[in-house]
Amino acid sequence: MKTGGIGLGAMGAGMAWNLQRQGFLAVVWNRTPSGAEPFAGQEGIRVAGSPEELARCCELIVTCVSRDVDVKQAVSAMRPGLAAGTIVADTSTINAATARELAAQLGARGVEFLDCPVSGGVEGARQGTLAMMVGGNAGALERAQPVLAAIARHIVHMGPSGSGQATKAVNQIMAAGINQAVTEALAFGEAMGLPMDKVLDVVGRGAAANWFLEHRAKNMLEGRFSPGFRVSLHHKDLSICREMAKNAASLPVTEMTIKDYERLMQQGRGDEDISALFRVKQSAYKKQ
Amino acid sequence: MKTGGIGLGAMGAGMAWNLQRQGFLAVVWNRTPSGAEPFAGQEGIRVAGSPEELARCCELIVTCVSRDVDVKQAVSAMRPGLAAGTIVADTSTINAATARELAAQLGARGVEFLDCPVSGGVEGARQGTLAMMVGGNAGALERAQPVLAAIARHIVHMGPSGSGQATKAVNQIMAAGINQAVTEALAFGEAMGLPMDKVLDVVGRGAAANWFLEHRAKNMLEGRFSPGFRVSLHHKDLSICREMAKNAASLPVTEMTIKDYERLMQQGRGDEDISALFRVKQSAYKKQ
Repeated sequence: MKTGGIGLGAMGAGMAWNLQRQGFLAVVWNRTPSGAEPFAGQEGIRVAGSPEELARCCELIVTCVSRDVDVKQAVSAMRPGLAAGTIVADTSTINAATARELAAQLGARGVEFLDCPVSGGVEGARQGTLAMMVGGNAGALERAQPVLAAIARHIVHMGPSGSGQATKAVNQIMAAGINQAVTEALAFGEAMGLPMDKVLDVVGRGAAANWFLEHRAKNMLEGRFSPGFRVSLHHKDLSICREMAKNAASLPVTEMTIKDYERLMQQGRGDEDISALFRVKQSAYKKQ
Repeated sequence: MKTGGIGLGAMGAGMAWNLQRQGFLAVVWNRTPSGAEPFAGQEGIRVAGSPEELARCCELIVTCVSRDVDVKQAVSAMRPGLAAGTIVADTSTINAATARELAAQLGARGVEFLDCPVSGGVEGARQGTLAMMVGGNAGALERAQPVLAAIARHIVHMGPSGSGQATKAVNQIMAAGINQAVTEALAFGEAMGLPMDKVLDVVGRGAAANWFLEHRAKNMLEGRFSPGFRVSLHHKDLSICREMAKNAASLPVTEMTIKDYERLMQQGRGDEDISALFRVKQSAYKKQ
């Protein structure tokens, strides 16, 4: 299945390399041309001049961009090149309503749009071990599955268009709360003067064990906040969750996290890893 | 090492059975006599008439009770029976200051007091796979270690008296935040009409993966809230954390959780599992 990759950021590049390793990747495009350069030299991979040109030669297109507007732009730029039967698998995190809208638009031309957001961090993208939550036509997913398996170890069809994104929203809300949990607890531990390496060791083996603690706590305690997953992106995701929850659910921990992230962004820390929330918890200490 | 067990509740009984299986348990005592009955029929195990009597025939005493006052009472009741060189390993969750106080009191008589709180839930207690965070004399821990290994798979010496409890406080703060994270996210998912079994499956494989989701979410979604870990006990632990944090750390998610638990306790749900926080999240929905 001739596959194209649009969006070659930290997550997108990781996925594209895995598609390349398995021999699926035929063509790439990135809004910032420098992002596509590492792929230019690879045998069998072309850098397209435009999303339309990329779309014209692919049966499957995997997109990985940031915001709703970016996905809309990419789809609109591809549209003239998309033949009926082509599948667009969008791994970006956007509003479920946007995914439904794009699926309807493309569906009218016989093009399948799957919302395929992923979780597992940059390490998951690099290692091809992501979890992928898919909304849209089950038959289209069945066709795309052998290729998507190069990216994600665990692929679950959630239901109709939008349900992949709704599931990702669940994931992002949970990730926000876990970030609060881990940073609040470790900042407390630090204030208590505990040997934090031992704290991580023992707390990580009990009922508070979690992925984030295992993968981010050590860096956090050493004051290293390189992403990982950017504060500004999680803030964007949580704003989507807030919109989706309107009139349906109350999200107090998510709201608290949005405010904390805004404080970090005002301090110019939007490009740090979300574990930079640790800074907020530390600075909230009232000195004795 | 002749070992006694005081406190045979859900956690304490699990630990005591593991001590019995490994041939360490010689004598038990429980405030409510019925709690000791299952042990009465076992070969080589005696039910003591009082903590003092129990203390008189043991080299190591493992206590597992609820509150600071309960530990103080147990220690005070044992005291006349405690010979120099005896070790009291307290697995209860109490204030680090109380642990330091008891260690000083008993230390004056040559008795070692180790604060040994544990994490891993009732299943960890039953299976002997708990994580144990120990404060106190390293030599005493070394002597007790072969016995404690029957209870805990992972035992870490954190430092001087009180540091086990301070570490447990870190654990309980993290557990509170994770409870908030998981219940808020799953209540949102439910409100979105998602197939929740699939949500658990896929979210549990990504960056939001955590012990609590894996072990509590299924019951929670089916409206089953049998403990597990009681709301009233976690509330007690978080009140201790709040006290310990005074003038040292700010705990907004913990404070939110204390309030939510108080609401559940007012509804008569203090004996439910802490995942009953899901009820609070569900009821916070503003119906469209």
